[in-house]
Amino acid sequence: MRADTKHFLCSIEDGIATVRLDRPDRKNPLTFDSYAELRDWFRDLHYDDEVKAVVFASNGGNFSSGGDVHDIIGPLTKMTMKELLQFTRMTGDLVKSMINCGKPIITAADGVCVGAGAIIAMASDLRIATPEAKCAFLFTRVGLAGCDMGACAMLPRIIGQGRANELLYTGRAMNADEGERWGFWNRLVAADDLEAEAVAWAKKIAEGPNFGHMMTKTMLQQEWNMSLDQAIEAEAQAQAICMQTEDFTRAYNAFVAKEKPVFEGN
Amino acid sequence: MRADTKHFLCSIEDGIATVRLDRPDRKNPLTFDSYAELRDWFRDLHYDDEVKAVVFASNGGNFSSGGDVHDIIGPLTKMTMKELLQFTRMTGDLVKSMINCGKPIITAADGVCVGAGAIIAMASDLRIATPEAKCAFLFTRVGLAGCDMGACAMLPRIIGQGRANELLYTGRAMNADEGERWGFWNRLVAADDLEAEAVAWAKKIAEGPNFGHMMTKTMLQQEWNMSLDQAIEAEAQAQAICMQTEDFTRAYNAFVAKEKPVFEGN
Amino acid sequence: MRADTKHFLCSIEDGIATVRLDRPDRKNPLTFDSYAELRDWFRDLHYDDEVKAVVFASNGGNFSSGGDVHDIIGPLTKMTMKELLQFTRMTGDLVKSMINCGKPIITAADGVCVGAGAIIAMASDLRIATPEAKCAFLFTRVGLAGCDMGACAMLPRIIGQGRANELLYTGRAMNADEGERWGFWNRLVAADDLEAEAVAWAKKIAEGPNFGHMMTKTMLQQEWNMSLDQAIEAEAQAQAICMQTEDFTRAYNAFVAKEKPVFEGN
Repeated sequence: MRADTKHFLCSIEDGIATVRLDRPDRKNPLTFDSYAELRDWFRDLHYDDEVKAVVFASNGGNFSSGGDVHDIIGPLTKMTMKELLQFTRMTGDLVKSMINCGKPIITAADGVCVGAGAIIAMASDLRIATPEAKCAFLFTRVGLAGCDMGACAMLPRIIGQGRANELLYTGRAMNADEGERWGFWNRLVAADDLEAEAVAWAKKIAEGPNFGHMMTKTMLQQEWNMSLDQAIEAEAQAQAICMQTEDFTRAYNAFVAKEKPVFEGN
Repeated sequence: MRADTKHFLCSIEDGIATVRLDRPDRKNPLTFDSYAELRDWFRDLHYDDEVKAVVFASNGGNFSSGGDVHDIIGPLTKMTMKELLQFTRMTGDLVKSMINCGKPIITAADGVCVGAGAIIAMASDLRIATPEAKCAFLFTRVGLAGCDMGACAMLPRIIGQGRANELLYTGRAMNADEGERWGFWNRLVAADDLEAEAVAWAKKIAEGPNFGHMMTKTMLQQEWNMSLDQAIEAEAQAQAICMQTEDFTRAYNAFVAKEKPVFEGN
Repeated sequence: MRADTKHFLCSIEDGIATVRLDRPDRKNPLTFDSYAELRDWFRDLHYDDEVKAVVFASNGGNFSSGGDVHDIIGPLTKMTMKELLQFTRMTGDLVKSMINCGKPIITAADGVCVGAGAIIAMASDLRIATPEAKCAFLFTRVGLAGCDMGACAMLPRIIGQGRANELLYTGRAMNADEGERWGFWNRLVAADDLEAEAVAWAKKIAEGPNFGHMMTKTMLQQEWNMSLDQAIEAEAQAQAICMQTEDFTRAYNAFVAKEKPVFEGN
């Protein structure tokens, strides 16, 4: 998996990829270029076997301020419908590529986490934040609708329909305490410990079983709008597949030998 | 939009419609007539451009006691199946008309908020209540099922499946603290401030962008049972439409000029 | 309804069936036999009219340790795909038979409630636990995926998508306080009172209206992936059916006579 990205920072170590936007002086806005490159990077990740988990980190005390007003919103006001749809599909494709990459993604959010930045956090599997994290779905503030990059589908499932409505209509910031209480953030940690904590979670997950994790991620999305009966059958098939991996036998053998299993992802 | 309603109170001021049931001596039960007129009023609202947000207010210290036992339940026990279905469809049509009216609805609930009254609160977009608000899905108390006017679909998405189960099977009252903790109420405020607070929220929302709010409301319902991929594509289209409104350009111009945007809903 | 079960304990009294696994020395693991017999018992329950509610109780201070490592996981590591699918479908069929049995099920969980044990709790309608209850979705610990017996469909709807992700990827235990705060447990009670409390809830539910409860249970599942409009029409039909039961008339007559209704389930 390539780490030589141009429009965001990326490093890969021990199976953990850490990515972050890189314009800390402006609280890390997204640009046309970083959108596209992130989309392509996560798409490639789908076929990669080296990276086991991803940390989407903050930079300079902030996660992301979302789509840049000057670099993105200005140009959008002058586009044709065809160009606009090309843009909104690109942003949606970033979410799709994240949820289809097959590896758990952990957002580590400090400070500002708004607009498309809040969506990236939401499209991650796990979310850690600092007590200073401010998360807002700002779309109505720029004259748009709350339905952006899947927000109206994802946010209600994370924090409940009533709270999602409030955030999406008003664009008001959800403070960190609310975010923890409502189930948006999995944990709050001090800013100094934020990235280390996220990497520790990633390492734990990277220990595997990675085939199993890939299947968990696949099915969480796959069952999104199945009936309960369909979901149960789908999981019977998915889990039967996992039972033919060597990792399943490794776990059993380790248990019998009273050892800790070492998973290999196959 | 007409405010001369016969079976409930309605006033319209500065783009905010305030409606309330009007039988405070009996805690504002619904009747065949008020069900039908509310359904028709919210249906008409779909095509209206003057009203930007609706407050569904309390009256005399209570929101609503639901379907009246004497005026509704008595007659229902004597109806044919055809007539019964006509009634249950009319009540369901009230919910449909509320979720399809295109304008955010804010319930302001004091005191009793039960049965069909609880459903009206649930079918609203935002919900404010007093610490005295008691919300109960009473249907089992009158020998019926918890599945009334969409309750089994909506309540689990607001407060979670486990808590919804308890309220729907037992019919027990959810007190205001639980309701806030569980995400049913967006905020609790003292009775004296309740309606002013709801109107203040409505005014904030009425400032717009109202085309965007209409689209948010549309998509929250539209994506209810889409797959995540379908939802993301649907939002790419919906948001591209919003990007061709003048309000989007107005917001950008105001940002550049360091002013507050004034939205016009187009 | 038969209570002479071989692979789990069952007693039936006053319309309440109490079932529990019976290997307390090993924290009540499931076996091939108990899976199959539970599945068949809940399937039969669908056609039974005597049992009105079920308590799934703990035994010896624990609810269940899930699929037994020696009796189940060992053999599974040696099976063909055909046999594996037969097994995973059998476990999924237990969940299906529970959600289709037509009677509310109340889990009363003390101590260990993990793996398939956690799924049984999750597939119940109501959940009471002790402050000592530890609930974990352990599947990743044995090299498998979190998608087991419908977990990826059910858990997000109970505690929210973000918290569900954490439990399913990490397999970590959810303690009782978290479980209550997140809406997994409906109530926490001391171990000494646990079963009495669950039976009290069951008795309350068994008072009826049992036809209504059956319909509530049916619709909660039926509407799982309907659109909101479809759900509202489905409930209009379901409730109209309930309005033709005698229990509806009994409730009305009792109300008029200022008495407590006595429901008969028809």
